[in-house]
Amino acid sequence: MKKLLFIFFISINLFSQEDANTIRTIYDNSLTNGKSYQWLDYLSNQIGGRLSGSLNAEKAVYWTKSELEKIGLDKVWLQPVMVPKWVRGNPEFAYIETAPGKTTNVNICALGGSIATPASGLKANIIEVKDFDDLERLGKSNIEGKIVFYNRPMDETLIDTFRSYGGCVNQRYEGAVHASKYGAVGVIVRSMNLVLDDLPHTGSMTYGDIPADNRIPSAAISTNDAELLSTMLKLDNDIKFYFKQNCKQFKDVLSYNVIGELTGSEFPDEYIVVGGHLDSWDLGDGSHDDGAGCVQSMDVIRLLKLSGVTPKRTIRVVLFMNEENGTRGAKKYAEESFAKGENHIFALESDAGGFSPRGFYFESDQKNFNQILTWKDLFKPYLIHFFELGGSGADVGPLKTPNNVLSGLKPDSQRYFDHHHSSSDTFDAINKRELELGAAAITSLVYLIDKYGIVTKIKL
Amino acid sequence: MKKLLFIFFISINLFSQEDANTIRTIYDNSLTNGKSYQWLDYLSNQIGGRLSGSLNAEKAVYWTKSELEKIGLDKVWLQPVMVPKWVRGNPEFAYIETAPGKTTNVNICALGGSIATPASGLKANIIEVKDFDDLERLGKSNIEGKIVFYNRPMDETLIDTFRSYGGCVNQRYEGAVHASKYGAVGVIVRSMNLVLDDLPHTGSMTYGDIPADNRIPSAAISTNDAELLSTMLKLDNDIKFYFKQNCKQFKDVLSYNVIGELTGSEFPDEYIVVGGHLDSWDLGDGSHDDGAGCVQSMDVIRLLKLSGVTPKRTIRVVLFMNEENGTRGAKKYAEESFAKGENHIFALESDAGGFSPRGFYFESDQKNFNQILTWKDLFKPYLIHFFELGGSGADVGPLKTPNNVLSGLKPDSQRYFDHHHSSSDTFDAINKRELELGAAAITSLVYLIDKYGIVTKIKL
Repeated sequence: MKKLLFIFFISINLFSQEDANTIRTIYDNSLTNGKSYQWLDYLSNQIGGRLSGSLNAEKAVYWTKSELEKIGLDKVWLQPVMVPKWVRGNPEFAYIETAPGKTTNVNICALGGSIATPASGLKANIIEVKDFDDLERLGKSNIEGKIVFYNRPMDETLIDTFRSYGGCVNQRYEGAVHASKYGAVGVIVRSMNLVLDDLPHTGSMTYGDIPADNRIPSAAISTNDAELLSTMLKLDNDIKFYFKQNCKQFKDVLSYNVIGELTGSEFPDEYIVVGGHLDSWDLGDGSHDDGAGCVQSMDVIRLLKLSGVTPKRTIRVVLFMNEENGTRGAKKYAEESFAKGENHIFALESDAGGFSPRGFYFESDQKNFNQILTWKDLFKPYLIHFFELGGSGADVGPLKTPNNVLSGLKPDSQRYFDHHHSSSDTFDAINKRELELGAAAITSLVYLIDKYGIVTKIKL
Repeated sequence: MKKLLFIFFISINLFSQEDANTIRTIYDNSLTNGKSYQWLDYLSNQIGGRLSGSLNAEKAVYWTKSELEKIGLDKVWLQPVMVPKWVRGNPEFAYIETAPGKTTNVNICALGGSIATPASGLKANIIEVKDFDDLERLGKSNIEGKIVFYNRPMDETLIDTFRSYGGCVNQRYEGAVHASKYGAVGVIVRSMNLVLDDLPHTGSMTYGDIPADNRIPSAAISTNDAELLSTMLKLDNDIKFYFKQNCKQFKDVLSYNVIGELTGSEFPDEYIVVGGHLDSWDLGDGSHDDGAGCVQSMDVIRLLKLSGVTPKRTIRVVLFMNEENGTRGAKKYAEESFAKGENHIFALESDAGGFSPRGFYFESDQKNFNQILTWKDLFKPYLIHFFELGGSGADVGPLKTPNNVLSGLKPDSQRYFDHHHSSSDTFDAINKRELELGAAAITSLVYLIDKYGIVTKIKL
């Protein structure tokens, strides 16, 4: 027993010094010679918001493919996938009407997937609720013919703002399904934003199995205007709300996942995936969501090569299409890789913004997680401290098998929802160093996974 | 031995649950009912930059005093201290001249404490150096009559940007002392900024014991213009640099530290200090440096009371005057408290920006540090992970004794030097949650120190 322990400690130390040096080199390269920031500048400022099925999404596909072709991968290709095409149309318009002719304009945006209002807009009484239980309590008699206003704010006391988001987003995603059961004619939802400001935040919604004729238009209202509307309703619950939007869902169109690959020198049949999603919402330029994750992923193989690492396993960067309103790209990628019997031992996604990286979530059994935890100290000099079991992300999630490990980068989350899905998700909100530190953290983890593999790998 | 261990673990667990609950309450209060953000809005936007000796600094003194008087302390007072008064004067002006009449304007600002140029400005050849060794290598023959251009950039590869700053700031602080030894007529120093942009960053400088007649004017140049100037010098080392500034050092004037105190219920003679510095540079409004630290400190006692904590020890909030160009307030506070024999068991400073808090530095012996380390897990839910021995800060530093503990809040440092001492250190660069998380972290640590005291306390 004593002898075993002795050997164990010796080998940990031997590993650590070489690994510590390589990780230091990866960080140096990312911070002094990284490409992520320059790439994101182009993606955000020269292409811009890239909603699935849009011309910009197509531009982003071909531009990222051409950039990946420049960094010496073994193979770069496009994986076809049919995606939804929803178009916002003209800027939305809305006001609160306290009496005929007495109106106050408010800031809204259509939710992704919503139908339009009638061409002349929709005006109705409006009723505020906090959740679906409120709908049931109020019942059809109080709701029918009205617009339902979901106004449950994000919980400010949660430290991880993604948890606050998780506690609210059902209002946006399923709000129309629930409200229409009670005869509501429209949905207005408080923006998922922890800050009080004037920017509406869009995001996906569903109509579930509601027939086309019974669907109701749905929009998000800025947090400031949600507060205003709520106050005005307290003074007079008979006020009316007007909104007009002419968004439209078209037929699915052809788009692509963008994939680049460097073949492993020893275990080419073991795949390591690193990725983000190339599509974004249309209001901003998608710098944090998820341009950041794309460019960080694009830089991983380049940084490994610059740092003198020859990957043993096959490393793939995958820029997934359509995470925002369908995750069709993720489903397609997983479907085809399972069909081909590709053995994905590890897949990591960066889709939580380009902020200072704090660590990683892992979807893993305990055995693999224990191995990963032995690497934690290697990250300490870089202030990466968060190694926890938890969800990886929507794009790599479908790749889970009982044997492999998935991961999601966890950046500092405090500012993320200030920008998320709104017109302020723009390149000026990106800090170069924070973005590059994220790329370095991901690359360092990929380096370790590539070098040591995973414990439970089993061929599919 | 076994029995001792058993008792130890039991007591740790008993402590932890009550403490965990109190800390949760402190965080809840800061995030939902904190005053730091509202205070900083006023300090930044209604008062603004507050250089020592200025009218704004005086306004800030009286306004913070009146705010502290509103939160139910036992005593609020002003501690007189004479401070330097340096005034920038008209906006500075500078250009690079490649040939008579062929000029390119560049962005500079006078360094704090610098003398003016002659009224018509100063034009001379300019010579680039990276450090003081370069001066020695070049010698008087190459430097005399020229302006010295210090252009050593901040090291991008260091993760803690304060270390990068530490590696560069001697160019700014002592640049004139060294350059004037070789007959230089002026100093231009690259701004301490990790980003390439157009903003010059000011900061303090010294003339050491150089007689008044031999002092040379000194200014900072933006990083973009430092790059430009360096490139132009490589093409033609005979180009000239012109700059004009009419800053002036006046006689010392009376100012104040602002102090508020809540008397301890059990150990009133043991003092716990928490503070920031109220003065700031004049180019921005000093939101990060150090309005943030002031308002966080101002909220500590209020948050403790809101959270049901009755401090056993005397807690003082101290807003130090003149950290930026003299630390006279810090010296005065320490001098008087030592003279009175006040037993400061702990003093914490927040002066590294209002960004997401990551942890604390401690100036402590090992015994006290070991006690503090037992609290580390209490901070884990709040993503506070950094507990390391290291320097506390310029304002609390003079309070060190062999027995007490000093501390400095360590926020995420990646964005700090984008704003530090420049016109972009403004309220819009503050995130409400990050500021409030910092206030909560400080308050939680003060709660623990107040509850458990320190191990080595000895009456002075």
